[in-house]
Amino acid sequence: MEKAAVLTVEKLTELLGREFSEAFHPDGGLSILQVRYGGARVRQEYQKNATRPGGTLSGPVIMQLADVTAYVAILASIGWVPLAVTTSLNINFLKKPPPRALIGEGRLIKLGKRLAVAEIDIRSEAEPDLVAHATSTYSIPPW
Amino acid sequence: MEKAAVLTVEKLTELLGREFSEAFHPDGGLSILQVRYGGARVRQEYQKNATRPGGTLSGPVIMQLADVTAYVAILASIGWVPLAVTTSLNINFLKKPPPRALIGEGRLIKLGKRLAVAEIDIRSEAEPDLVAHATSTYSIPPW
Amino acid sequence: MEKAAVLTVEKLTELLGREFSEAFHPDGGLSILQVRYGGARVRQEYQKNATRPGGTLSGPVIMQLADVTAYVAILASIGWVPLAVTTSLNINFLKKPPPRALIGEGRLIKLGKRLAVAEIDIRSEAEPDLVAHATSTYSIPPW
Amino acid sequence: MEKAAVLTVEKLTELLGREFSEAFHPDGGLSILQVRYGGARVRQEYQKNATRPGGTLSGPVIMQLADVTAYVAILASIGWVPLAVTTSLNINFLKKPPPRALIGEGRLIKLGKRLAVAEIDIRSEAEPDLVAHATSTYSIPPW
Repeated sequence: MEKAAVLTVEKLTELLGREFSEAFHPDGGLSILQVRYGGARVRQEYQKNATRPGGTLSGPVIMQLADVTAYVAILASIGWVPLAVTTSLNINFLKKPPPRALIGEGRLIKLGKRLAVAEIDIRSEAEPDLVAHATSTYSIPPW
Repeated sequence: MEKAAVLTVEKLTELLGREFSEAFHPDGGLSILQVRYGGARVRQEYQKNATRPGGTLSGPVIMQLADVTAYVAILASIGWVPLAVTTSLNINFLKKPPPRALIGEGRLIKLGKRLAVAEIDIRSEAEPDLVAHATSTYSIPPW
Repeated sequence: MEKAAVLTVEKLTELLGREFSEAFHPDGGLSILQVRYGGARVRQEYQKNATRPGGTLSGPVIMQLADVTAYVAILASIGWVPLAVTTSLNINFLKKPPPRALIGEGRLIKLGKRLAVAEIDIRSEAEPDLVAHATSTYSIPPW
Repeated sequence: MEKAAVLTVEKLTELLGREFSEAFHPDGGLSILQVRYGGARVRQEYQKNATRPGGTLSGPVIMQLADVTAYVAILASIGWVPLAVTTSLNINFLKKPPPRALIGEGRLIKLGKRLAVAEIDIRSEAEPDLVAHATSTYSIPPW
C-alpha cells in the first residue's frame, strides 16, 4: 500500500506562510494545489506588475517555482523539517511561457535519510507542453 | 591585446532598465559594478523587506543574480542582443549567506556564434568564501 | 497521429557501429532495444572484466549510457545527423546498481531546430527503482 | 598557514590502483600529477585504440576524468575514505579536443562534513583553452 502524505495542503500552507513569508506571502501568488507522499503540485499565479521582481514569468520565477515545488514534496513526505536546504538545482528552459499561471509538478526520485532528489516539470496552466524541467537536491538534517 | 567590452556599465544599465524593467527596476537592488570582454560583476543589494519576493537572500535571489551576471557578461561582449535567452542553469548552494549584499562575478567560458556558457561565483560583499557557484548556458540568435 | 521514428533499430545499430566504433563496438555491450519518435531504450550489458574502463557499472559507464540513449533518441527522430554534439549533461546518482545489465530510457523534452534536450532514466534490468537520472542537451547542426 | 594534503600522489596512486582497478588499471592511462589540500591535477593519456571504451577522447572519457580528478582532490584532503560517492555531476562540453592527452584540474569549492562540491577544468595538455568544465558533488560517510 502506498504511503500517505504526512502533512496536508492546509497545514503546509499555514506553516510555510508563517515560516517562509518571503516566498509564501499573500502577494507572492504561490499556492499549493496538491500533495502526496513523494510529490506535490504548486501554482504560481501570473502577475502582470512588472515592477516587482517575481512580477513576470521570467527565469527566476520559474526557478523559484521549481525549488518551492520540490521543497513542498519533501515536507509532505517527511513532515515539518524546515532546516532541509537546497544544495543544488539544475534547470533547462524549454519554451517561453505565455502570460498565464504556471504549474509545478514535482516528484521525489530519491528520498534518503540525508539527501533528497526531486524532478520538477513546469508547464503553463492547462497546457501540455513543458516550459521548463528541473532537478534539485536537498540536504536533510538529522530528524 | 585583449578585446574591450563593447558596451559600458552606464549603457548596459540604461538599456536593461528600459527593456528588462522587471529585474532592473529601481527597487530591485541590482547594479552592474564592472564589465569587460568576457566578464561582469553585478551587485544585489540586501533587502530586508521580507514581504516582497526577492526581498531576502533566498535561493531564487541568488539564482537571479547568477543569471543576470552571466547575461550582462554576454551583452558586454557581443553588444545589445536582447534576444539571447537562458537555456539552462546549474547552481550549487555552498553556504548560507549573512544579511548582506551579494556580489556575482561572472566569466564566459565559451562564447560561440550560437551558444555562450558562463561560470558565476556568488559571494557576500567583502567576503572571500563562495555562497554559491553556477554555470549557465545561453542561446544566441543570429546577429 | 503520432510521428514515427525515421530510423529503425537495425539501421541505427549499423550506422553507429560503423561511425562510432569506440562506443558501439561488439565488446562494448551496448545495444539499442527500442526507438520511437522522441525516445529510445538502450541496454548496457554487465561486464565483469574489471580491467577495462567501462568494464564495471561505475559512474562513467552510467554517464555513457545516458548520453548514448539520448543521442539515439535524437537520431531516431531527426535522422542520421552524426554531427549533433552533446553540449551538457547533468546526472544525479541515486542508488548503487547491483552487478546486472543497465537499461537507459530516454525521451526528448525539447526537439528544436538547433537544440535538443533529453531526460534519461537509468535502471537495473527488470528493476523498478532508478539508479540514476540525467538530463542532457545537444547542439544540432543545420540539416 | 595553508593545510597540506594528507595523502601523497604515490600513496593515492597505490591505493586507487588497488581498490578501483577498473578505473586505475595500468592500461587506463590515468595518472595523478599533483595533489594539494583542496585540489588535484590528473592526466588522461591519449589512447588511439578506438575499439575499447575509453579508448578515445569522447564525452564519457572526459566525464570520467572530471569525476576522478574531483575524487582525488577529496581523498587528498580528507584521507582515505573510499566510501565517498559521487551524487551528481554537471558538465559543459566547450570544445572538441584534439587527439592529445587531457588534463583535469580540480578544486574543492566546498568541503563539509557530509558533502563536498568540486569544480573541474578539463584542457588538452599544454593548451590554454577549456575543453570542458564540470561541477560534481560527493556524499561523505561519517569518518
